[in-house]
Amino acid sequence: MHLLIIGAAGMVGRKLTERLITDGGLGERPVERLTLVDVVKPDHPADFSGRVDALDVDISQVGQAEKLIASRPDVIFHLAAIVSGEAELDFDKGYRINLDGTRYLFDAIRHAHEEDGYKPRVVFTSSIAVVGAPLPFPIPDDFHLTPLTSYGTQKAISELLLADYSRRGFFDGIGIRLPTVCIRPGKPNKAASGFFSNILREPLIGQEAILPVSDDVRHWHTSPRSAVGYLIHAASMDLDAVGSRRSLSMPGVSATVGEQIEALRRVAGEKAVRLIRRQPDDMIMKMVAGWAPGFEAKRATELGFKAEKNFDEIIRVHIEDELGGQI
Amino acid sequence: MHLLIIGAAGMVGRKLTERLITDGGLGERPVERLTLVDVVKPDHPADFSGRVDALDVDISQVGQAEKLIASRPDVIFHLAAIVSGEAELDFDKGYRINLDGTRYLFDAIRHAHEEDGYKPRVVFTSSIAVVGAPLPFPIPDDFHLTPLTSYGTQKAISELLLADYSRRGFFDGIGIRLPTVCIRPGKPNKAASGFFSNILREPLIGQEAILPVSDDVRHWHTSPRSAVGYLIHAASMDLDAVGSRRSLSMPGVSATVGEQIEALRRVAGEKAVRLIRRQPDDMIMKMVAGWAPGFEAKRATELGFKAEKNFDEIIRVHIEDELGGQI
Repeated sequence: MHLLIIGAAGMVGRKLTERLITDGGLGERPVERLTLVDVVKPDHPADFSGRVDALDVDISQVGQAEKLIASRPDVIFHLAAIVSGEAELDFDKGYRINLDGTRYLFDAIRHAHEEDGYKPRVVFTSSIAVVGAPLPFPIPDDFHLTPLTSYGTQKAISELLLADYSRRGFFDGIGIRLPTVCIRPGKPNKAASGFFSNILREPLIGQEAILPVSDDVRHWHTSPRSAVGYLIHAASMDLDAVGSRRSLSMPGVSATVGEQIEALRRVAGEKAVRLIRRQPDDMIMKMVAGWAPGFEAKRATELGFKAEKNFDEIIRVHIEDELGGQI
Repeated sequence: MHLLIIGAAGMVGRKLTERLITDGGLGERPVERLTLVDVVKPDHPADFSGRVDALDVDISQVGQAEKLIASRPDVIFHLAAIVSGEAELDFDKGYRINLDGTRYLFDAIRHAHEEDGYKPRVVFTSSIAVVGAPLPFPIPDDFHLTPLTSYGTQKAISELLLADYSRRGFFDGIGIRLPTVCIRPGKPNKAASGFFSNILREPLIGQEAILPVSDDVRHWHTSPRSAVGYLIHAASMDLDAVGSRRSLSMPGVSATVGEQIEALRRVAGEKAVRLIRRQPDDMIMKMVAGWAPGFEAKRATELGFKAEKNFDEIIRVHIEDELGGQI
């Protein structure tokens, strides 16, 4: 199989690439070729015997998506996006990358389909930002999409396009509404949601972390490992069961910040918990108040998507995958 | 006030123009200027003392929307669209007019806003095609959007853009999900939904009409007069009460075809009913099976939008507005 990963240099893209190489295949079929694409050239993976093309391509530039589709990859993972905060600050950039880029890609596939019947699987990463307050808890699968950010709007629009292009038979699309990925590896970043990871990741390596919200804030999480698991399953599952409603809220772990901290205490002890410094931030608290507390994810669970059962597991996954299994 | 009507040559556009001239104003404010736009030049209205510009402009062509916004109209009615059937047959044309056209218009307003703080009211006609089967009856206001046509997809995307551009403060947008307009005046057309009007309009003038579906098909209707009423109310109402969920399912009349026919019998007698010829059409029956049977329209009703109470009224409105008050 030939797999194309757009957004391959990002955290999820890199982990997906690693996992595909480790597995050696997708479902029953061996992976022979990887095309890794991002706006910066992705690294060549070390231990893959097949062909790899690592390309710096911006699909939001007219004509670029066609080049990627010319080689007719069997599966396309479309992970590329401007994140929430940046899409809110730079209106034009957000719409260009998150909407136009997606549409150029989908149209390039459509034109290839019209040319020779090409019909790949397209796995698109959407987001829980497609819903907006007021929100019930848990949020049912058929809750209406009322995004309150430009990022969420762009993802909701892309979901609609994915469904329509799939319905017309141009490709087999499936949209994955990723929970907030926690614990994000690496350095603390400036994303407003960063503290959910920071308050666990930093104490696990003996560093202080700042908690800008109160302990009763409830949110919806998944580990990087599960996020990659969703994508793999979406790429290999039977799509007949999905029907016309092509985007799925993924299973995840709903937890309050207080419950996150209790899990940290159980896994890493009081010493770790003491490294969390409470420093309330009104702006972040206001933003977070509108975020999703958790989803039912009934359809996705029935369709075989899996996540951790609780935050202890999420922390253990981080220790296994990022800290060599010990703290 | 200066009002811009895009799609002014269509049935609803013409009736809206007439009504605005008859009323002489919008809410408390007099209408001094009308800019009437369509892909074919709209007719100059006869009895309007203010300034009228009638223009043939296609907003789906780059740079055209800017020309319309240059004069900074106070209210913009965006009614222009490729209809459902055509958008399904011509994929590119549907997306160009119904999506790109809308986005060019919204961006032209945004750029004007960034230039000088311009912030008009934007009234956008959406459609009940934003929902798709399986559908409950009645459909609640917060039912999720799962369009099953490219037209419905384009309208749902435009609703998302309307909400985001309004949230960012570029304009004051409101989206109106029009029920199927019945009785459409004029000749029978080829729209799959045309028979809902045909089976009433033609018998009322002594002509035969073909009914391609069974009597128990239930659908959601409003008169042309009420459709115009929604637009007028949307243009003049206080938008604070609408909040972030900017598109509203309008009130209407839910009726089966059998109930439509009974109303015809009450209003125009057995002679009219006998002009309906049953000629089942599998393709139309299949399409209609996925259409909306009716909406709760609770929010819109609370916000002051009004429709007929039953089909007898809808037929009487047609007789008053199109047949000089008698049959």
